[in-house]
Amino acid sequence: MPAHDTLELKLKSTNPRYLAQVLYALRFADTAVKDLTATNGTLQVLHAAPDAAALKQKVESILERYLVDASALRYEPLWQHGENTTPPHDPFDDMLMQQLVNVEGSGRVALRGVLAELAEFIDFTVLRRIARTLGCRREVYPGTIALNDLGNAGVFQSLPQHMQFVAHLRHDLAAIDAFSKVMKESDFSGSAPPTVPDATLTQPEVLLNPAVCYHCYLTLRGQRVNPAGHAVTARSRCHRFEGASLKSLSRLADFDMRELVFVGSPPFVKEMRARATELTKELFVEWGLEGALVPANDPFFTEEYRAKALMQQAQDLKHELTVPLPDGAPLAISSFNYHMTHFTAPFDITGANGRPAASACIGYGLERWVYAIAMRHGIDEGQWPTGLKSPFDDWRKDFGNVI
Amino acid sequence: MPAHDTLELKLKSTNPRYLAQVLYALRFADTAVKDLTATNGTLQVLHAAPDAAALKQKVESILERYLVDASALRYEPLWQHGENTTPPHDPFDDMLMQQLVNVEGSGRVALRGVLAELAEFIDFTVLRRIARTLGCRREVYPGTIALNDLGNAGVFQSLPQHMQFVAHLRHDLAAIDAFSKVMKESDFSGSAPPTVPDATLTQPEVLLNPAVCYHCYLTLRGQRVNPAGHAVTARSRCHRFEGASLKSLSRLADFDMRELVFVGSPPFVKEMRARATELTKELFVEWGLEGALVPANDPFFTEEYRAKALMQQAQDLKHELTVPLPDGAPLAISSFNYHMTHFTAPFDITGANGRPAASACIGYGLERWVYAIAMRHGIDEGQWPTGLKSPFDDWRKDFGNVI
Repeated sequence: MPAHDTLELKLKSTNPRYLAQVLYALRFADTAVKDLTATNGTLQVLHAAPDAAALKQKVESILERYLVDASALRYEPLWQHGENTTPPHDPFDDMLMQQLVNVEGSGRVALRGVLAELAEFIDFTVLRRIARTLGCRREVYPGTIALNDLGNAGVFQSLPQHMQFVAHLRHDLAAIDAFSKVMKESDFSGSAPPTVPDATLTQPEVLLNPAVCYHCYLTLRGQRVNPAGHAVTARSRCHRFEGASLKSLSRLADFDMRELVFVGSPPFVKEMRARATELTKELFVEWGLEGALVPANDPFFTEEYRAKALMQQAQDLKHELTVPLPDGAPLAISSFNYHMTHFTAPFDITGANGRPAASACIGYGLERWVYAIAMRHGIDEGQWPTGLKSPFDDWRKDFGNVI
Repeated sequence: MPAHDTLELKLKSTNPRYLAQVLYALRFADTAVKDLTATNGTLQVLHAAPDAAALKQKVESILERYLVDASALRYEPLWQHGENTTPPHDPFDDMLMQQLVNVEGSGRVALRGVLAELAEFIDFTVLRRIARTLGCRREVYPGTIALNDLGNAGVFQSLPQHMQFVAHLRHDLAAIDAFSKVMKESDFSGSAPPTVPDATLTQPEVLLNPAVCYHCYLTLRGQRVNPAGHAVTARSRCHRFEGASLKSLSRLADFDMRELVFVGSPPFVKEMRARATELTKELFVEWGLEGALVPANDPFFTEEYRAKALMQQAQDLKHELTVPLPDGAPLAISSFNYHMTHFTAPFDITGANGRPAASACIGYGLERWVYAIAMRHGIDEGQWPTGLKSPFDDWRKDFGNVI
């Protein structure tokens, strides 16, 4: 193991949101970065980089990228419920002890027992109470999406760090046999898996879904949407490389997301976002959660960060429903996004007037909702408040585990 | 475009099952293979290979691999329902015309409208009528699985051709920026997408789920299962590279599968497979489908094909519920698999006696069930038989699209 060095840099801002965004982005700066802390206006980077000057340049470039005039970003909650107190303890160790979670790797977990039931109950409730109320039609989407389609949607210019590319063995007997032979002689017990032989893999043509809504735009490509507006809902695993070792359910690389997607005139789309927000707040309150709805922006990882983040804020494009983590940091469990014509324009989706339609999507990160409930109420369903326990019990009779 | 040549080879068997398996496997022989036909004991391979002799060697190797003494394989149905007549027509064009399917790429489709509802209804019914009756507990699994775990499970020695590997950009500012820059200057309208720059992608450490049940074995790794037996159910997208341009819903590269998984003593596991088979046959009959339950084997693509296929047959390990396609070929919509200790031994899962437990899994390919219903009854739900229409209408009131 190479010796570790520490790089120290003075921070130009100590705004908490700037710090959170910079610490997140720095995960992707260099594989040699081992640990990061920011205290008293100083950033400390523990690293194993052979070329410290090159590393410093990367870190400085990221610090600069995310430096937005603090006065341009709003932080006041749009809505708040409860005292927003930090939860008493992190339930993750209990989940592991009771085998309600199986950690397969960094950010990849299976939910079991009551936690799997809870995830399904949350999805069921969003579907029944929100999606159907808003007239969303059900769709079933692939788990992958073409590189060309994500490229068209502009995703590689906003969130390239998250992308997960798919390749397969060349369909050639020699390549497939070479792979099988190497694997036959391999040991699968190491922390780094055996290397797939050179030149057996194809260039990626598809990626894993980073989100659900892109598939909706593909169904409408080149079309004029119904003047009354288009509303659908789908659930999919979503995949984002997160550049760090992930623990707990608060951030996963492979997670379940229910989305509602709306396409139509700006007033229709904005009204649907507003109604979905109100219906989601109702559930949040009924289930005894505490937290806040806040203005937000995506973790853009490009030189265009500043322009895009300011635009999201100025146009009020992104709201997040957050709950406090045990360390006090906010965890977004749902997001309410108005895209203007960002996704409809590249796919030539027009409205009644022949101009590009607008779109919006609402996302429910199922594992994060599970975690929010577990942090607030614990993992023993006997202790849950009636507003949650009673509908959960009703659901369980029909759809849960037979005990 | 290079000129095409035709390679002709005499076939050593004209057994229909041998032909089906060989034609399937030859898709993976070489990217230069353009088309395949087998008539009157002769195989014709249309190809664009510069080295015809090398291609011939690959094709001959595959023809040899799959040559099993025909008398060793049983073909008689274990059960049959209806006349097993071929369906009147292929409903796929109607699905496209009515925009009930959106084709995103080869083998990657979105289901919409009544077809999405039908897929969800099928899953709901399997869950309520079969999984719960057999005491399966719900679990929620990742969409990806570690290379090490699939390697341990022996999958690379049986079905390497299907594997879909996941890579991400090196978490290094230089690699991520290089990727974004190339993509910014790219055109996404070609049939081949732009090339991801060299050396920006990592070696794959995870793959897409080729099936659901592996995640269950991971939850039990190193454990002794409950003497009463372990039963779970989960649904996941599954991904298999299929080496050819795929049309219709009959074979997809990215599909939805509900699985029931049983782990325990051989008698428990076999009884659960038998009960799941009976309950599935009930649904099949109620929904007015026609077809057969047949002994089967997996499309192993390795030199061990013969040994493995004969073993699956001799030990009665795999049954498939099939419906006839418009061309008369059988389409498997469910499979009923007894694994003996194939998956429990590598993950050290033991039974009450301390010896490796046995396992079984039952799979429901949701798009294939949808297709089976559409082939037999059409895509206008008004024309469906009462045994299907009536429970579908009940489901729709609570969970379907609000019309």
